[in-house]
Amino acid sequence: MGKPLILITNDDGIDARGIQHLIKLMNEIGECFVIAPDKPQSGKGHAITIEEPIRYKKLEQYSHPAYSCNGTSADCVKVAIRHLMPRMPDLVVSGINHGSNSSVSVIYSGTMAAVIEAAMEGIPAIGFSLLDHSPEADFKPALPFIKHITEEALTQGIPKHHCINVNIPKTQDIKGVKICRQAKGRWIEEFDVREDPHKRTYLWLKGYFEDLDQGDDTDQYALNNGYVSVVPVQYDLTDYKYLNELKKWNIDV
Amino acid sequence: MGKPLILITNDDGIDARGIQHLIKLMNEIGECFVIAPDKPQSGKGHAITIEEPIRYKKLEQYSHPAYSCNGTSADCVKVAIRHLMPRMPDLVVSGINHGSNSSVSVIYSGTMAAVIEAAMEGIPAIGFSLLDHSPEADFKPALPFIKHITEEALTQGIPKHHCINVNIPKTQDIKGVKICRQAKGRWIEEFDVREDPHKRTYLWLKGYFEDLDQGDDTDQYALNNGYVSVVPVQYDLTDYKYLNELKKWNIDV
Repeated sequence: MGKPLILITNDDGIDARGIQHLIKLMNEIGECFVIAPDKPQSGKGHAITIEEPIRYKKLEQYSHPAYSCNGTSADCVKVAIRHLMPRMPDLVVSGINHGSNSSVSVIYSGTMAAVIEAAMEGIPAIGFSLLDHSPEADFKPALPFIKHITEEALTQGIPKHHCINVNIPKTQDIKGVKICRQAKGRWIEEFDVREDPHKRTYLWLKGYFEDLDQGDDTDQYALNNGYVSVVPVQYDLTDYKYLNELKKWNIDV
Repeated sequence: MGKPLILITNDDGIDARGIQHLIKLMNEIGECFVIAPDKPQSGKGHAITIEEPIRYKKLEQYSHPAYSCNGTSADCVKVAIRHLMPRMPDLVVSGINHGSNSSVSVIYSGTMAAVIEAAMEGIPAIGFSLLDHSPEADFKPALPFIKHITEEALTQGIPKHHCINVNIPKTQDIKGVKICRQAKGRWIEEFDVREDPHKRTYLWLKGYFEDLDQGDDTDQYALNNGYVSVVPVQYDLTDYKYLNELKKWNIDV
């Protein structure tokens, strides 16, 4: 078997340092194909572009196929596999995100939307995020872990319609890797209320994360203790535990 | 106890006929508070607005508090409960969406993002969608079902951090209501490739849904057979079945 074909994308945009690191790393592992948003698309969740035309642009500065796209990260995956790529990739990697996608942040994450999009198509996929929002974040300590996890995923194989969410703590001294579940938690929003020069009120969304989980088997716990967290992710949102409760409702009209 | 305080939102925008029907219906049940996007925000998934200021506008034509907002449906819920409302609502309802949010469409759905956002805040929430994309869709057959399910939810109570996805078939002759799980399925994308007057290529995203599920307990099955589907929804994306498999990986660097 030849080198694996790896599709690389992100949600911070093609110019983000995170994806540049990921491209370099993936070139050591496989044959690369890159498509990423032409501007930051963070916090866009699993948004797709229906009401606007989608455009893409070939980028000539790479030694392998590379494109920017005016859509979201989920759009990027769709455009790549349904329109641009000669064949289905063996793996989709997304990131390295500037900022955490642990716990419920996975719900808002464009990085993970690309990964889930790939999983829905039956392609193995991994999202990588570093717990450092800074454009100047130090990705170096994360790189050997990302490379090793990617290689292990290619060796072991990720079953169809499954995918993986990897978060990396912001530290020079990463302790190791833990397989975890998503921590229960939530974002507490506090709007920053301001007035523009025309005396109109506007809001900036800001918030802080509240860990509502006591477990030592969660991604938050791993990250708080200096470990890389690896969470297997699925996209069946059915609440099976609650399903039988609901059947007791007097639901017919 | 007085009338329940009901927060109403959607992703098709404040002017959509679906939300106007929902507002009218909820006024028969409780005290209403409305906030909805000022333009369509369909397919925006769980997008939130981080990089732009959020604005809202009070709408005077309603007999109860009502606002439009330049953000997504998830933003609307955040702005309402963290900034505008005097107290937490007893229930959040979202819709009535023009189009299906069954099976994996829940992942892309702005309607359901508002519902999940509420659930994360611990507020009972229900999303309603009619399987008819048309702006001229006939909502009438759906209305008694929406009213009854809402009243039953208020009577029975939805436990904290749980929520419900209701889809309604496009038929004059609705057979009844079924409690279901989310069907396995996917969207097959086929891009419509066009050239603009400047000879630049652009794409329109289009696709069709493929049901990959054989079960008779799914939302797709219920809807295909003329029933309203009620799916309990949760937002822990951990793939618990795959978690133990992953633990066998040689994952440490």
